[in-house]
Amino acid sequence: MYRTKTCGELRASDAEQIVTLAGWVHKNRKMGGMTFVDIRDRYGITQLIFSAGLCEMANKLGREYVIRVTGTVKERSNKNFNIPTGEIELEVSELTVLNVSATPPFTIEDDTDGGDDLRMKYRYLDLRRNAVRSNLELRYRMTIEVRNYLDKHGFIEVETPQLISSTPEGARDFVVPSRMNPGQFYALPQSPQTFKQLLMVSGFDRYFQIVKCFRDEDLRADRQPEFTQIDCEMSFVGQNDVLDIFEGMSKHLFKSILGIEIEEAFPRMTWHEAMKYYGSDKPDIRFGMKIVELNNILKGCGFTIFDTAAYIGGICLQGAANYTRKQLDALTDFVKRPQIGAKGLVYARVETDGVKSSVDKFYSQAVLQHMKEAFAAQPGDLILILSGDDVMKTRKQLSELRLEAGNQLGLRNKSTFACLWVTDFPLFEWSEEDQRYYAMHHPFTSPRPEDIHLLDSNPGAVRANAYDMIINGVEIGGGSIRIHESGLQNKIFRLLGFTQEKAQAQFGFLINAFRYGAPPHGGLAYGLDRWVSLFAGLESIRDCIAFPKNNSGRDVMIDAPSYIAQSQLDELNLSIVHVH
Amino acid sequence: MYRTKTCGELRASDAEQIVTLAGWVHKNRKMGGMTFVDIRDRYGITQLIFSAGLCEMANKLGREYVIRVTGTVKERSNKNFNIPTGEIELEVSELTVLNVSATPPFTIEDDTDGGDDLRMKYRYLDLRRNAVRSNLELRYRMTIEVRNYLDKHGFIEVETPQLISSTPEGARDFVVPSRMNPGQFYALPQSPQTFKQLLMVSGFDRYFQIVKCFRDEDLRADRQPEFTQIDCEMSFVGQNDVLDIFEGMSKHLFKSILGIEIEEAFPRMTWHEAMKYYGSDKPDIRFGMKIVELNNILKGCGFTIFDTAAYIGGICLQGAANYTRKQLDALTDFVKRPQIGAKGLVYARVETDGVKSSVDKFYSQAVLQHMKEAFAAQPGDLILILSGDDVMKTRKQLSELRLEAGNQLGLRNKSTFACLWVTDFPLFEWSEEDQRYYAMHHPFTSPRPEDIHLLDSNPGAVRANAYDMIINGVEIGGGSIRIHESGLQNKIFRLLGFTQEKAQAQFGFLINAFRYGAPPHGGLAYGLDRWVSLFAGLESIRDCIAFPKNNSGRDVMIDAPSYIAQSQLDELNLSIVHVH
Repeated sequence: MYRTKTCGELRASDAEQIVTLAGWVHKNRKMGGMTFVDIRDRYGITQLIFSAGLCEMANKLGREYVIRVTGTVKERSNKNFNIPTGEIELEVSELTVLNVSATPPFTIEDDTDGGDDLRMKYRYLDLRRNAVRSNLELRYRMTIEVRNYLDKHGFIEVETPQLISSTPEGARDFVVPSRMNPGQFYALPQSPQTFKQLLMVSGFDRYFQIVKCFRDEDLRADRQPEFTQIDCEMSFVGQNDVLDIFEGMSKHLFKSILGIEIEEAFPRMTWHEAMKYYGSDKPDIRFGMKIVELNNILKGCGFTIFDTAAYIGGICLQGAANYTRKQLDALTDFVKRPQIGAKGLVYARVETDGVKSSVDKFYSQAVLQHMKEAFAAQPGDLILILSGDDVMKTRKQLSELRLEAGNQLGLRNKSTFACLWVTDFPLFEWSEEDQRYYAMHHPFTSPRPEDIHLLDSNPGAVRANAYDMIINGVEIGGGSIRIHESGLQNKIFRLLGFTQEKAQAQFGFLINAFRYGAPPHGGLAYGLDRWVSLFAGLESIRDCIAFPKNNSGRDVMIDAPSYIAQSQLDELNLSIVHVH
Repeated sequence: MYRTKTCGELRASDAEQIVTLAGWVHKNRKMGGMTFVDIRDRYGITQLIFSAGLCEMANKLGREYVIRVTGTVKERSNKNFNIPTGEIELEVSELTVLNVSATPPFTIEDDTDGGDDLRMKYRYLDLRRNAVRSNLELRYRMTIEVRNYLDKHGFIEVETPQLISSTPEGARDFVVPSRMNPGQFYALPQSPQTFKQLLMVSGFDRYFQIVKCFRDEDLRADRQPEFTQIDCEMSFVGQNDVLDIFEGMSKHLFKSILGIEIEEAFPRMTWHEAMKYYGSDKPDIRFGMKIVELNNILKGCGFTIFDTAAYIGGICLQGAANYTRKQLDALTDFVKRPQIGAKGLVYARVETDGVKSSVDKFYSQAVLQHMKEAFAAQPGDLILILSGDDVMKTRKQLSELRLEAGNQLGLRNKSTFACLWVTDFPLFEWSEEDQRYYAMHHPFTSPRPEDIHLLDSNPGAVRANAYDMIINGVEIGGGSIRIHESGLQNKIFRLLGFTQEKAQAQFGFLINAFRYGAPPHGGLAYGLDRWVSLFAGLESIRDCIAFPKNNSGRDVMIDAPSYIAQSQLDELNLSIVHVH
């Protein structure tokens, strides 16, 4: 070993010991006849002091040089209590430069002067920054605690294959040409869904895997072409069993990682309630501000926009009656942005002497008071109202407005966490375009037993035995109880417009497996990247991934993807079709 | 939950409890007016007893039906001490069939009647067999213990990307066409080598990852297109530091998994010694039978084959002088097989009254006695001798013969383990075909410091700071101390025939990273599949992989790889070149 101690472990009690440290030159400054150097490694920073003979050499040390020093630990007279090693410094008697460094293109500090592109290109330097490295350390600790918890609960981790076959349903697959099977392709898994179900058929009983998954989709801040799932499945369970086990895992993570003890059970909200009160299937319940439907109150008073709307709803911002005209205009612009698409925003200030709205000429004070009561609003509150022709669309607009208002009012503190389960999703989604139903999750999701009788008469009303775990408005995980009886499975395939041949072609191995004694089973998958970024308080999942890709799917550091040799293409029996 | 207990946990102390079990019908037999059913889950087997009213229903249960039963635990009068639940049986009062099963194509027993192909096609049923599932449980426990050990030693697991870029050097890559970057490809990693070195440049200090790697090579029993590595790297270390840490990890696995306490240090053998005494860089040292060079003894006595050979060597099989002519002929056939390629085999029986060889007419008893002494042979031993024009080739033939002899003499017991390190590999290999040197490991492997002066004058003699860990003749892991100085790195690139441009094009991001303060570092990677199969005593790595591929790289269960839709090819700007 090049060192006897790390740069993070020396304390006053080590005074007068002779030690050897190795690390990077973090800072270098002359003072009087002496030179002070901060040496840094993963574990911390230690102040080195060079005097007399070594000063000249020490003065030449550049930022990020790799050095080894031997010296005597000295208790500092002017202690720095901001860092764990601040009680001591090392009086260096021997200095070796292990490696030099060019000047880094940005500073290795929490507040670096490097922009995103530069940091990504030199990711190996970016990773030297505490802020980035600590995200990866957090990620590692989370995987340890996930494994601890699941191991204690009898789960075993099984590696499922990464080279599988492509299924046309669902998102786009990445494919891998097979040299040994010309013209054929493997696909990289979007999730180990079918394999974990096969493991249940195999009697593995409780499976998990922390596993890379791949999806060839257009990217945005919280999407990467490769991402990591905590994938889980259990046999002989119903929905409550799954929720209990994984609520327990979440609480274990909150406690062991963040030191937050969550005593009470996570709220469980149906999809229908979530849409009604939050306009979202992933409500942020750190704050109330529930959506209130106003159709009964505001219709029929002569305001044409509301009178002809299919839906009118609003939210109440406590204490925001003092919003300026400018702030209200900004909120109007916000909801009119194409991504949100509302036509306009109606507001009403609740004041001690009455409610004053932007549509006062249509509404009597009696109606406005009625509205005020519907929100249980108090003087000083601000009511914001949207309307539209499409109930769901308007609710979603209200959801965006609610989140924006929550931001403005400081109700979405990153160090406060609010978890819940959303359950009872619709089993099917109707596609106007294709005039057919699609499975909202996947075709193996089971309907709620009490809704099975609706499968023929009203498939759109059938609720799934499916559930999502939401933290602070982010979908952290989701899953379902699966179908294990072939009769029911065949019925669902028929409803989804699969012929028996098509079902067999796409899911044959799973359907066949189910013929040999499939147990009742269900599970879920968590998005590790999202969970880590939530715990770390990050805006994007990128900073909890060591080597992420940009929005074009490129790794700008290694410059991937790249062109390959003609000989490689030849071996794979492929040619590139040039784009004109 | 469908059950209150598993099928493996009931004991005599549970007698008279009312419990519910769920699992698979393992066996079903009528006896008198009663029906006995063995119910099986991952945790064990419990005997169920059905009487009177439930018999009829129980008799109809087929093999592998999934059932749930409630009943009273009864202490058995005729206890079965071969299984943990053998003291009790469950007197069933309620039976529910959760799912039926078609008759499985083979029996779910340790000694199944299913052939390899059938078992692979129905892998989900094969995995129900104890023998297979226990391999995967072993694999899981090994990963837990690896993580425990490395975590305790300050390593952190970091996920490196799976979509990287292709490097023409080395084995063949699997590639992944990029839709967003037309004509360009990602490659799947053969190992995270460059990324773990970048993490050292980043100051991660101690990294590990249990990670899938990919290699598009022609397959054999111990190769799969996707395989799992325990990949590790450390900073500020020399070779002994790495060997010490990972020898410790190996001992931890032996102790925690197999209960074997290895007190003594693993032997460390140079590559040169390994080749000389065992004819192999992965010697099986469970037994001696070292190769003895016989050039000095057997040359110049008129036996032309030996007189003209570049190398003569032999091994001594203790107590095998009684080998029959037939056995010796079989050994001769063995070494003459094309895979081994020897021209013939000379033998000598050591008897009390002298040495009797197959070439007696050329050798006096004095010479043969001299040879006997060279082997320290005793009466009753058998000496086998090979010769050839190529020293290394002949040594490798002797190695094969030695292993075969070890098998025949029962010296290679699967439950005995002998570990060692092989060190000091040559840094370069000379290719006669290309008339150039290749890196024996990879171009970032550092030479031994004391050999650096030979780089110009005699590159073939330079030893690498590289090491392999061998258990029972299987290479379980290997690695090296890396080069961290750009001057030395450039010199190695030049020796390997890389122009600066070529080096930059292939390894630019790593070379650039090394400009910014790379610490001294080194590491190694273990093959998890091989290690598990060794601990499990398996012939092939396949049975410690949940869903393996066959020798054509096919997963016969899911039928992958497969053809993809034209629309997928179009999106990827690819067309298939048809093979004529």
